[in-house]
Amino acid sequence: MTNIMEKIVSLCKRRGILFQSSEIYGGINACYDYGPLGVELKRNVNQYWWETMVHQREDIVGLDAAILMHPKVWEASGHVESFTDPLVDCRICKQRFREDEIDPKKLEKKQCPHCGNKDSLTEARQFNLMFRTHMGPVEEAASTIYLRPETAQGIYVNYKNVMDSSRKKIPFGIAQIGKAFRNEITPGNFIFRTREFEQMEMQYFVKPGDDDAVFQQWREERLTWYVNLGIRKEKLRFHQHGKDELAHYAKVAYDIQYEFPFGWKELEGIHNRTDYDLSRHQQYAGKDLSYFDDTSRERYIPYIIETSAGLDRTVLTCIVDAYEEENLEKETRIVLHLDPKVAPIKAAVFPLVNRDGMDELARKIFEQLKNQFNVFYDDSGAVGRRYRRQDEAGTPFCITIDSQTLKDETVTIRDRDTMEQDRVSKDILITELDKRIWGNTQ
Amino acid sequence: MTNIMEKIVSLCKRRGILFQSSEIYGGINACYDYGPLGVELKRNVNQYWWETMVHQREDIVGLDAAILMHPKVWEASGHVESFTDPLVDCRICKQRFREDEIDPKKLEKKQCPHCGNKDSLTEARQFNLMFRTHMGPVEEAASTIYLRPETAQGIYVNYKNVMDSSRKKIPFGIAQIGKAFRNEITPGNFIFRTREFEQMEMQYFVKPGDDDAVFQQWREERLTWYVNLGIRKEKLRFHQHGKDELAHYAKVAYDIQYEFPFGWKELEGIHNRTDYDLSRHQQYAGKDLSYFDDTSRERYIPYIIETSAGLDRTVLTCIVDAYEEENLEKETRIVLHLDPKVAPIKAAVFPLVNRDGMDELARKIFEQLKNQFNVFYDDSGAVGRRYRRQDEAGTPFCITIDSQTLKDETVTIRDRDTMEQDRVSKDILITELDKRIWGNTQ
Repeated sequence: MTNIMEKIVSLCKRRGILFQSSEIYGGINACYDYGPLGVELKRNVNQYWWETMVHQREDIVGLDAAILMHPKVWEASGHVESFTDPLVDCRICKQRFREDEIDPKKLEKKQCPHCGNKDSLTEARQFNLMFRTHMGPVEEAASTIYLRPETAQGIYVNYKNVMDSSRKKIPFGIAQIGKAFRNEITPGNFIFRTREFEQMEMQYFVKPGDDDAVFQQWREERLTWYVNLGIRKEKLRFHQHGKDELAHYAKVAYDIQYEFPFGWKELEGIHNRTDYDLSRHQQYAGKDLSYFDDTSRERYIPYIIETSAGLDRTVLTCIVDAYEEENLEKETRIVLHLDPKVAPIKAAVFPLVNRDGMDELARKIFEQLKNQFNVFYDDSGAVGRRYRRQDEAGTPFCITIDSQTLKDETVTIRDRDTMEQDRVSKDILITELDKRIWGNTQ
Repeated sequence: MTNIMEKIVSLCKRRGILFQSSEIYGGINACYDYGPLGVELKRNVNQYWWETMVHQREDIVGLDAAILMHPKVWEASGHVESFTDPLVDCRICKQRFREDEIDPKKLEKKQCPHCGNKDSLTEARQFNLMFRTHMGPVEEAASTIYLRPETAQGIYVNYKNVMDSSRKKIPFGIAQIGKAFRNEITPGNFIFRTREFEQMEMQYFVKPGDDDAVFQQWREERLTWYVNLGIRKEKLRFHQHGKDELAHYAKVAYDIQYEFPFGWKELEGIHNRTDYDLSRHQQYAGKDLSYFDDTSRERYIPYIIETSAGLDRTVLTCIVDAYEEENLEKETRIVLHLDPKVAPIKAAVFPLVNRDGMDELARKIFEQLKNQFNVFYDDSGAVGRRYRRQDEAGTPFCITIDSQTLKDETVTIRDRDTMEQDRVSKDILITELDKRIWGNTQ
């Protein structure tokens, strides 16, 4: 199982999808940098979410709030008080642990999981997961600010401004993609849990009483979204939060989980947050955040249905779900079966050999495609090796210009997944690729 | 002059382009949130830069490095030691100032610019502009990390990994868009200078000796980029850094400046950074960062030509450059003449009135366009008022479905800038809009 993750991490480095951050300095724990292919994959997932969640929906508008917010926001949200992990120290070896991650038997004996001594662990104290810093030239309590631990609050504090400027009426949603930071004690599993990460959150404002039905709709819509992203349906499931898991503000909550090599893990949370957030901000800011409903002539604090996904986590899911070591007759083929719409490179263009005008014609075709798609030109090495390199990069189509192209102006399109080749006229290439990449989604 | 900026700030709030961050809590100094229209404009500028700087260029690849990096990076870069502003305090009123911004006459007399007392100012001390925080559960010197003050270093430390995985040879470039943070003492001019901002940087690696010629190419290319973005050429100029302005690492540096209502200000810097950055990282990391040139059989540390632009600043330039109060016969029209390719909404669709089937037909046309463009449907109020709302939003085209549409299936396309209307068949609308939005750029 971990073996597969190791292979994926290795592929990601080899092909420029993900690098350890600051690697030449020995790295920095649980921070990763997206390489040339990784940044394209991430931008494509980001764009697909934005396209489906904002542009395709008349009831949702976008927002991009700053990471640095007024510190009172985090008092109102409850993060200053209770966004904490319980930490215990070992008095002997000085190691630090999350209490809830220590084997209960060891915890009972105050037995350190690291050095093994008994009666060495301190009582737990609460450690806040927000990164703190200071704004302005004076480092004092009054200038303390936080790196936001979630993007959601940026939406809540802007909800009136958004409504007034966009003339939206309830029900409507506000969507946002942006970075958040959590000083996790135990990050891990590659980019699954990192201290710096990107969220894709949508907050949907509804009339109290309509919340249950709207919740059900979003729960279904969001699962379908991952299927449309090309993720295998059998690897996805819902997990309903039990009473002991529910956040204090939540009426009902479901996770969408994916079966990673390291187990079923949360991809996205769908939460009925009730009127908790707006009520708290109304109280802490001393501003009226109620909504007057023109139709029913009622005034109320809207309920909020939240869909909260991780962008890095979704990228990891795309990679893990797409990864295959395929045993062919004479070799093992490593291939990323990425959905064409998120694949970093849409098509690679190869002249079979660099002579007889195949190279000039290949360049010409490449230049035409470049205006429409992110394409890649490769003329070095045997064509079989070029195919393999694109398989590892997840490129869905390879276009080869061969001697027959010189006669009848047809090229071959080689499909990454089936490895089959079709011949098509070079004049319909753009239309053909458009169809194969976007399929029924556009 | 400031009057114009006030009007622009007001328009930005009214139309949902930019809001003051955490406004319900009284705001937070020099932080802004992008509203529904603003986030679309920003994404379009981001995408246009990426498209032209990465996808259209075979010699440039992308990267997206984490904001949190190994602290040694900032020792190597020189930021820990010298990324500082000189600060003086007033012993009487306790205000704090940047020494280089105090009137020299007042400074000579140690006269406070705030309370006016003489001999009240302290000697200057150096204040580091990097935001500091701690990673992991222990707040101690060893866990101190910084929010990156520039994205460039993320490119330098990854240059070997990028080269190895993408098989690029010198000359080539690495491009990145991402947030950076500077604890500026005097931010200001709306989103021109903020403490949290987004950079669009490209670092181009060249053989020493080729640097001057490549520098000249990039200087010209980058100015042309702003013209292609729709910025008026006469508002753009170069400013060459004099000897006293040059950063310690720079051999030559030019700014591209724009004439804002508050004066000519830097939009982008083009710098010849020599081999300074890679040499420093080679030294501090103890890793060989030299390049072996296959063709010339030489080994060298590449020189770097940097093009460093601000995304927020470019968005502000688009807005300022596009803003017009146009005196018509009976009224003043406020219009944003944004280039169609960055305009938040590409087209608005209106039924002239909500009857006789005009509304059904308008909805149908809207649904078709929605798959290709970010479009907006509006059926409320007089059509003249609907046009005005779109003028303020910078929407280049309004499509109206009227009684003639019911007869001959033609619609009107109203041009935002000329206010003229053409009739076109509804069947060629997508082609027509494509042409008008992308013009010669695609």
